[in-house]
Amino acid sequence: MFKKGDWALLLEEGRAYKTVVRVGSGKAQTIRGFIDTDALAGAPHGAVITSSLGVKFKALPASIFDVIEHRFKLSAQAIYPKDAVHIVKAAGIGPGSVVAEAGTGSGFLTAVLAWYVKPWGVVYSFDNRTEHMKTAVRNLEAVGLLNYVELQIRDVVKSGFGALRVDAVVLDMGEPWKALEHVYEILRPGGSVVIFSTTVEHMAKSVEALKKRGYVNISIEEVLVRRWKSILGELRPETFDVTHTGWIISARRG
Amino acid sequence: MFKKGDWALLLEEGRAYKTVVRVGSGKAQTIRGFIDTDALAGAPHGAVITSSLGVKFKALPASIFDVIEHRFKLSAQAIYPKDAVHIVKAAGIGPGSVVAEAGTGSGFLTAVLAWYVKPWGVVYSFDNRTEHMKTAVRNLEAVGLLNYVELQIRDVVKSGFGALRVDAVVLDMGEPWKALEHVYEILRPGGSVVIFSTTVEHMAKSVEALKKRGYVNISIEEVLVRRWKSILGELRPETFDVTHTGWIISARRG
Amino acid sequence: MFKKGDWALLLEEGRAYKTVVRVGSGKAQTIRGFIDTDALAGAPHGAVITSSLGVKFKALPASIFDVIEHRFKLSAQAIYPKDAVHIVKAAGIGPGSVVAEAGTGSGFLTAVLAWYVKPWGVVYSFDNRTEHMKTAVRNLEAVGLLNYVELQIRDVVKSGFGALRVDAVVLDMGEPWKALEHVYEILRPGGSVVIFSTTVEHMAKSVEALKKRGYVNISIEEVLVRRWKSILGELRPETFDVTHTGWIISARRG
Amino acid sequence: MFKKGDWALLLEEGRAYKTVVRVGSGKAQTIRGFIDTDALAGAPHGAVITSSLGVKFKALPASIFDVIEHRFKLSAQAIYPKDAVHIVKAAGIGPGSVVAEAGTGSGFLTAVLAWYVKPWGVVYSFDNRTEHMKTAVRNLEAVGLLNYVELQIRDVVKSGFGALRVDAVVLDMGEPWKALEHVYEILRPGGSVVIFSTTVEHMAKSVEALKKRGYVNISIEEVLVRRWKSILGELRPETFDVTHTGWIISARRG
Repeated sequence: MFKKGDWALLLEEGRAYKTVVRVGSGKAQTIRGFIDTDALAGAPHGAVITSSLGVKFKALPASIFDVIEHRFKLSAQAIYPKDAVHIVKAAGIGPGSVVAEAGTGSGFLTAVLAWYVKPWGVVYSFDNRTEHMKTAVRNLEAVGLLNYVELQIRDVVKSGFGALRVDAVVLDMGEPWKALEHVYEILRPGGSVVIFSTTVEHMAKSVEALKKRGYVNISIEEVLVRRWKSILGELRPETFDVTHTGWIISARRG
Repeated sequence: MFKKGDWALLLEEGRAYKTVVRVGSGKAQTIRGFIDTDALAGAPHGAVITSSLGVKFKALPASIFDVIEHRFKLSAQAIYPKDAVHIVKAAGIGPGSVVAEAGTGSGFLTAVLAWYVKPWGVVYSFDNRTEHMKTAVRNLEAVGLLNYVELQIRDVVKSGFGALRVDAVVLDMGEPWKALEHVYEILRPGGSVVIFSTTVEHMAKSVEALKKRGYVNISIEEVLVRRWKSILGELRPETFDVTHTGWIISARRG
Repeated sequence: MFKKGDWALLLEEGRAYKTVVRVGSGKAQTIRGFIDTDALAGAPHGAVITSSLGVKFKALPASIFDVIEHRFKLSAQAIYPKDAVHIVKAAGIGPGSVVAEAGTGSGFLTAVLAWYVKPWGVVYSFDNRTEHMKTAVRNLEAVGLLNYVELQIRDVVKSGFGALRVDAVVLDMGEPWKALEHVYEILRPGGSVVIFSTTVEHMAKSVEALKKRGYVNISIEEVLVRRWKSILGELRPETFDVTHTGWIISARRG
Repeated sequence: MFKKGDWALLLEEGRAYKTVVRVGSGKAQTIRGFIDTDALAGAPHGAVITSSLGVKFKALPASIFDVIEHRFKLSAQAIYPKDAVHIVKAAGIGPGSVVAEAGTGSGFLTAVLAWYVKPWGVVYSFDNRTEHMKTAVRNLEAVGLLNYVELQIRDVVKSGFGALRVDAVVLDMGEPWKALEHVYEILRPGGSVVIFSTTVEHMAKSVEALKKRGYVNISIEEVLVRRWKSILGELRPETFDVTHTGWIISARRG
């Protein structure tokens, strides 16, 4: 049953259009007319709801990735959900992990990290821009994950990460190689550092810095997801799609 | 500090060779000579250990994926770690999730699912072959995840999944479309079903069955990981690599 | 030096915009203003020409692929230049080859085939729709390749290819498996047949028909071109691009 | 009908094994026993021939690519047939083109270029190593394409290409950016230069040099061929395959 504050994934019946709304947040605008989200409170999962234009939607509980994909105000970052889960794997992150992240950005990756470290882990997330933090707080609160995150406005290149001891560090920032000195201070032996780079030169500099600082087990990977159309009798991959987001570079503190 | 029963990732110094051994399990054979794993007990993470052939290794705590990749006896299944984490994402699985899986196989995917649902979730895993169960129990115990898994020898096509109510169902079995009727009985509204298919015909039959049974939000994806060599000045993708494992088909119970 | 009837590739100076115009065809409209193509007649290759909006373009002789990509009225076909040259390779086509093609469509693939069989080869191209033929004639004439092509309005499934003896047959049509019986009649022993299929079911039926009819050395390939942005310091693949056109199936007459 | 000196593609009946032999060259060793190639002279295309171990092969005329793939002694170069035809397209090469190439290497790419420029075009191919030239001459003669190639032992970086005027230049050499100055001297305005690079740093330097020297319409592409297994009912891409050869960089002389 939906209750106020829940996120609902609305799937148009017989069509591919979908959207995500928050239950109990009044009228939500969609390209298929308005949805009365207050009427969803108390409705069972799987209920059918009709928009102001008479379009029928099936309402299902939204997953964390549904909310992120449809509702996060993404700032100029390029990590996609496909990358986020691969980063979680590459960093060896799981329930209970203690993780540091720089920078926070919109809080998208922060939310994914928090989702996988809960209920006993924590994500320390750093960003040097106040407006990023405001967006991230709003986003993390909206998906109920703010409890698992410690946010701090801080330039980690200049000031380091503070007195932490973490299992993994994730860097999604401008010049990550400049932060590696401080990463070493907080990472436990054997802990993982993961860097996300969108250009080849950025990736090369990151790899060079990792080698110079003695990190081991360095790997460079790109994750490509090939989506297929699901029309029976005409199965084929999508004709146009995302072909590049970035490189996921991972290494261990030796 | 390593203690008896821990898994250690051994990285050859200055070379790419690596292996995983269990601390306190006596002499472990590697292609670089024997490793005295008993001597690792009490050593700090990051310690250097020397093989019987004089080869030096750095010993780091192994991640769950390190152990799985190096030590699981994989039976004839084709799910790779890259697929396993994408399945976790596609199914919306996280800490606390209640998941059903058929079939268990070597327990590789079971272990990954258990790793992400702990400490409060559970994986119900079914297989109709006794030898698979034996392998899976041994593997899950070795990585300390057996506590989060309920294993059962059972043909889910014939007998269903029993009286369960789950958040997600993962099918990695011969003819998954025959199990979809029973999947519907145990899946909560809005819950996810994920099917792994290695051939196009298998994938098409799975999609057809999902549509016929009223599942919604169907997606078909392939995950391709492009690994790069990390030699500075000569950066390039690997020349040969894995180019296909299978399709990840996901849908929601409407 | 450009002369009337030549095709010119116009590259905007300092920008990525480009277009193709025909020399001596009057004023050509572009999104950067009008180009006086008559003024190009007599200008040297590499000349700079200015549009009515004052935008400067460098004028170079266009290659066959430049003309095709910018000027052909493509009907509902999905073969891209990357596929066309791979088809030429898969079919073993070269200068002097005698090739049959069904269907002609816009004449795009026909033009590429003609380009590589000239000066002594010939392409027999069949289509059962008159409007396709009209488009193809116009296109082939525009690129000066009509001399190397014999066009015929004919349903090859019903009526076959006539009394030919060819080195290769290329099928880019609705149900190519229905034409294979007739392909066998005109193909020399050891000659190649290449089929282009855009869906998996179409591809599977084609492969099945090839096997049933005794063709040998069957191969199924997809050609994926990954384009990179060429901004120095920010090298990376394109973010969005074409991810699927079709499968190229080739086989030899045994 | 096969005649002495022809190349025959031998396909094992009912199996995937294949090889290429030269008709009239005595006994040829294969992993399925010896083949009496003298007996092939006079046999029709499509004839069945039996090896000394009783294995049956169907004999078809080999294409240029069959011979190259099976018989060329490839030195340390990494261009694959998929790349070679894409280079032909990127360079706008066709029958009658005049092309310069550095370096010759085993003559593999030279042969492909010659195959497409014949009967009236020519390939000027340069290499500074005598042993490469010897191999190339032998290879080009074996496939009957030596008539379309002018080979010269020469260091094009030091000494340039001589007094030529060409439609296209293809560089498959150690430091191609050092040869670009001389490329400009022989390339007609609007002509194409294509560089093959196997590492990202090599590619970046090539692009930088092209920009500095005023080349226009620069493009960077990778060609990836995804091969599928053709087992009906179990259609799927190959599990392991080539995942990287190199980048094809093309540009026009402005």
